[in-house]
Amino acid sequence: MAERKRTDDRRRSDDRRRAPRAPENENAENILEGRNALSEALSSGRTVDKVFIAEGSTDRALARLAALAKQAGAVVVETDRRKLDQMSATGAHQGVIAQVAAHDYASIDDIFARAEQSGRPPLIVLCDELSDPHNLGAIIRTAECAGAHGVIIPKRRSVGLTAVVGKTSAGALEYMPVARVANLTAAIDELKSRGVWVFGTAADGDTALYKADLKNAAAIVIGNEGSGMSRLVAERCDFKVSIPMLGSISSLNASAAAAILLYEAVRQRMA
Amino acid sequence: MAERKRTDDRRRSDDRRRAPRAPENENAENILEGRNALSEALSSGRTVDKVFIAEGSTDRALARLAALAKQAGAVVVETDRRKLDQMSATGAHQGVIAQVAAHDYASIDDIFARAEQSGRPPLIVLCDELSDPHNLGAIIRTAECAGAHGVIIPKRRSVGLTAVVGKTSAGALEYMPVARVANLTAAIDELKSRGVWVFGTAADGDTALYKADLKNAAAIVIGNEGSGMSRLVAERCDFKVSIPMLGSISSLNASAAAAILLYEAVRQRMA
Repeated sequence: MAERKRTDDRRRSDDRRRAPRAPENENAENILEGRNALSEALSSGRTVDKVFIAEGSTDRALARLAALAKQAGAVVVETDRRKLDQMSATGAHQGVIAQVAAHDYASIDDIFARAEQSGRPPLIVLCDELSDPHNLGAIIRTAECAGAHGVIIPKRRSVGLTAVVGKTSAGALEYMPVARVANLTAAIDELKSRGVWVFGTAADGDTALYKADLKNAAAIVIGNEGSGMSRLVAERCDFKVSIPMLGSISSLNASAAAAILLYEAVRQRMA
Repeated sequence: MAERKRTDDRRRSDDRRRAPRAPENENAENILEGRNALSEALSSGRTVDKVFIAEGSTDRALARLAALAKQAGAVVVETDRRKLDQMSATGAHQGVIAQVAAHDYASIDDIFARAEQSGRPPLIVLCDELSDPHNLGAIIRTAECAGAHGVIIPKRRSVGLTAVVGKTSAGALEYMPVARVANLTAAIDELKSRGVWVFGTAADGDTALYKADLKNAAAIVIGNEGSGMSRLVAERCDFKVSIPMLGSISSLNASAAAAILLYEAVRQRMA
């Protein structure tokens, strides 16, 4: 309770300081505003997830900065200047606002190296366009507990490794490699070519959960909170697993689905 | 995305309207301020979870209201007047602020009736002093999907059925009976006397998850987010189950633990 109260108080005073802003931006610490801030972040090697840049700008310095960010792996989005103004906490964004990651990204090779080190068949989670940082954080936490070797997320249309993700992961982000790929379907193809079976999750899946063989190298795909897996991703899966739904509502939360599949893999691998 | 944006905009304008308040009070719709509001809620039979009443008040009308609320099952807490002022959105609380439940509570009998109707052995979740409404909502959602028959929470030191719980449950609260008991240990004794095996969850549990027999009438106890099950509750459990932890961090989120146990019960009951 004491801890909770402190947090509330802190938020309240934060909010008073920058009153006109949306109150729920828990990611403020990962937001950089202005050219110098972004340019310094890039040259110090920090991982920049996304750059919002003023639409229609003819400023060459800004264009150069955007190109550098893109080269470093960031997604660059042209954004209406009024929207930039709205996003800005300082009111001095100079046409550019960037989101940096709370943690560095790993590569798919890192994930395979970790699996090899563990002496167990790879167990990997792919998150297809998750939008809620609490879900991504919870999945990273459960994946770490279940002894998974890594998590893969797409660059676009997905929450990145924000501060909220780190906090919700309860420390797991320090141990769990998270790879961020330009193309999730290409990543699935790569996993398959390296001997990993890919299990999607879908309400209409044709493989019953407890019939899925998760003992060998396996990747589990968790779909978007609202719409599930995207069509292209679903088509690439070796199996589409359905979790038994015994009640009246039609879907589990993304992180609950991940927990159920990951621990079914744990059970099968212990047996 | 469109839906999400609308929500953000709404919140922003809400916040502008009542600027001096803490921005994250998502429960505002369940808060009643003032004597008339509480008195009407009580006489219309709405479920009042908690009443905060000005400390040291000698007002007899207020005392009568508090007694009525207590009789109707609410927890009454004497509260410093300055704290009431802080909690108040209207600035006109007249010495009393009440939390009403977003949904009615069920009884333990309701839960057993539902189990009997289903033709399956009872499957019940007990939440021991959960403080995060998102966890309680997520557990209700997963319990409903897993075909559990009810959830039991304690009256004190636990989040009640707030609006956030309802929202996080994604509709499951409409189907899942939630009983709120004065004493969780007494509720465990009652379950045991009615033939239900009680499975606690603990890091140092002596029963491995996949050895626990969840096929018969079973209740699963999920502990508080920070401190786990309380001592008295832990002592009452027939079995203390440990979920395998294969990584570096030491605990799962409460709702992930619930999902793993509930679906292990589903698996065993389908086999």
